[in-house]
Amino acid sequence: MTVNVLFAANETRWAQYEPHLRSALDATGLEYHLATDMAPEDVDYIVYAPNSSVQDFTPYTRLKAVLNLWAGVEDAVNNPTLKVPYARMVDDEGLTQGMVEWVTGHTLRHHLGMDAHIVNPDHAWIPDAPPVASDRPVGILGLGQLGSACGQALHRLGFPVSGWARSQKKIDGITCQSGSDGLRQVLTQSQILILLLPSTPETENTLNAETLALLPKGAFIINPGRGPLIDDAALVDALDSGQVAHATLDVFRTEPLPQDHPFWAHPKVTVTPHIASETRAPSAARVIVENIRRGESGEPFLYLVDRDAGY
Amino acid sequence: MTVNVLFAANETRWAQYEPHLRSALDATGLEYHLATDMAPEDVDYIVYAPNSSVQDFTPYTRLKAVLNLWAGVEDAVNNPTLKVPYARMVDDEGLTQGMVEWVTGHTLRHHLGMDAHIVNPDHAWIPDAPPVASDRPVGILGLGQLGSACGQALHRLGFPVSGWARSQKKIDGITCQSGSDGLRQVLTQSQILILLLPSTPETENTLNAETLALLPKGAFIINPGRGPLIDDAALVDALDSGQVAHATLDVFRTEPLPQDHPFWAHPKVTVTPHIASETRAPSAARVIVENIRRGESGEPFLYLVDRDAGY
Repeated sequence: MTVNVLFAANETRWAQYEPHLRSALDATGLEYHLATDMAPEDVDYIVYAPNSSVQDFTPYTRLKAVLNLWAGVEDAVNNPTLKVPYARMVDDEGLTQGMVEWVTGHTLRHHLGMDAHIVNPDHAWIPDAPPVASDRPVGILGLGQLGSACGQALHRLGFPVSGWARSQKKIDGITCQSGSDGLRQVLTQSQILILLLPSTPETENTLNAETLALLPKGAFIINPGRGPLIDDAALVDALDSGQVAHATLDVFRTEPLPQDHPFWAHPKVTVTPHIASETRAPSAARVIVENIRRGESGEPFLYLVDRDAGY
Repeated sequence: MTVNVLFAANETRWAQYEPHLRSALDATGLEYHLATDMAPEDVDYIVYAPNSSVQDFTPYTRLKAVLNLWAGVEDAVNNPTLKVPYARMVDDEGLTQGMVEWVTGHTLRHHLGMDAHIVNPDHAWIPDAPPVASDRPVGILGLGQLGSACGQALHRLGFPVSGWARSQKKIDGITCQSGSDGLRQVLTQSQILILLLPSTPETENTLNAETLALLPKGAFIINPGRGPLIDDAALVDALDSGQVAHATLDVFRTEPLPQDHPFWAHPKVTVTPHIASETRAPSAARVIVENIRRGESGEPFLYLVDRDAGY
């Protein structure tokens, strides 16, 4: 029996996902037909973007499940024609792993002083090796799942890692602090500071003129957390004075970052376009196909939406 | 009793080493005097560059040991006036750790596509996240101490790592290959290829037109090993054709890399000035001070030169 899988999302997603869905489906050993167009009465599974053209599920008479391409299900959960099991995307692998890679990569980039070699128009040969990681203290504000995973990866590479969270934590490889004294201690020690706090009224402008002044002179700021954690004007001042050597920012108060924002043109700022942690096609395709495999072998689906709760 | 330590090397080294020697000496609890000038008859230890002005050790009548700043001792080992214990620098921490950091950093840099964000004059906001590390196979040619340590660090970050060495090895986290079939297998799989082979007649031009053609199209080359491992002209051709996306090179047939070498101006080459693995002042200072501590407490010195063997 061929399993018929309809991909209902735009063409860009199809280009991203098709090869990864096929290789994950191949690995199951199932016979399958995967396409963006198919007679509704033949469809077994829909890989689904809630903003796709499929909004009436009535003609899909043998549908076994709808498998969402991303985490948010609020646009489809109340669709009265969607009566089969509906699974959200839970791509822990992509989200946490992506964040660890992005944070570790940019921490090593600043630690090693890579930019001076990547952009070296004068062809300068200056063989100054950086200190080893054990002589480069790193601080992380925010010790949730992402902050802990990043801190532990940096610890395994040899960096001394201290971290701060609102409540006192205990995490292998990370010297954990809390409270305002703890925040001060982390800030004064961190040559590289990583922001992974949630965005709340209490965390807004965590990095401001006063806290930036506590950092060791020439510190690096890495923000893959939330835009409002930083007072943008205070950061620009700290970069201009040399108090902060460079800021690498993945998140902003307005995204995409407006073209007239001073971060774009600032020589000591690197802008990345909110890519540190997002659902990745290869791992997300594996999550979708695991649910198809489960459906075909009569096992319960993962990550089903609770329609009563609405999420 | 104050321990008198003479630093006999040039001013640049003094600037690099003084703070690290002082902090390591402070940590011993010893009373000490550290300086670049001192009456010879007062000197207990010499921290020594063999090319320094100290060549006649006869006036240093209470000298307890000479502690070399680097690994090479061939310039001093036959000095007939040097009769006290003479220790070479063995900075495994700096050498291996530095290599792991440099290789991991540049692997993540290429994996994440950082350069497009570091140099982004058009302020383009294109939120394409890279695949996760588990979908980015990495290959390492050369599985000695440095190759194994780098491979294991990359494995811990989630990269699938395969490695090749002349003789078959077995290393946790690395799929080890050997022989010419094994080389072909590693090359055809590696989206990022790291060269850590020794320089021998057999390894010269390991990367040539034929082997470069085996790589997946758009692969990245990272060479912190030895310059002669690469046929430079073949690499430039592979970069120009798009077969290789980028090469990050730390070692060259001639160093410093001559200003007229095509690597300097090539937009797909990053030159780093032989810094991936070298003795680092902070860790080397700790090695030197550990020997001073041992001398003062009557413990045997580490890393003594064998004068009969000449090294």
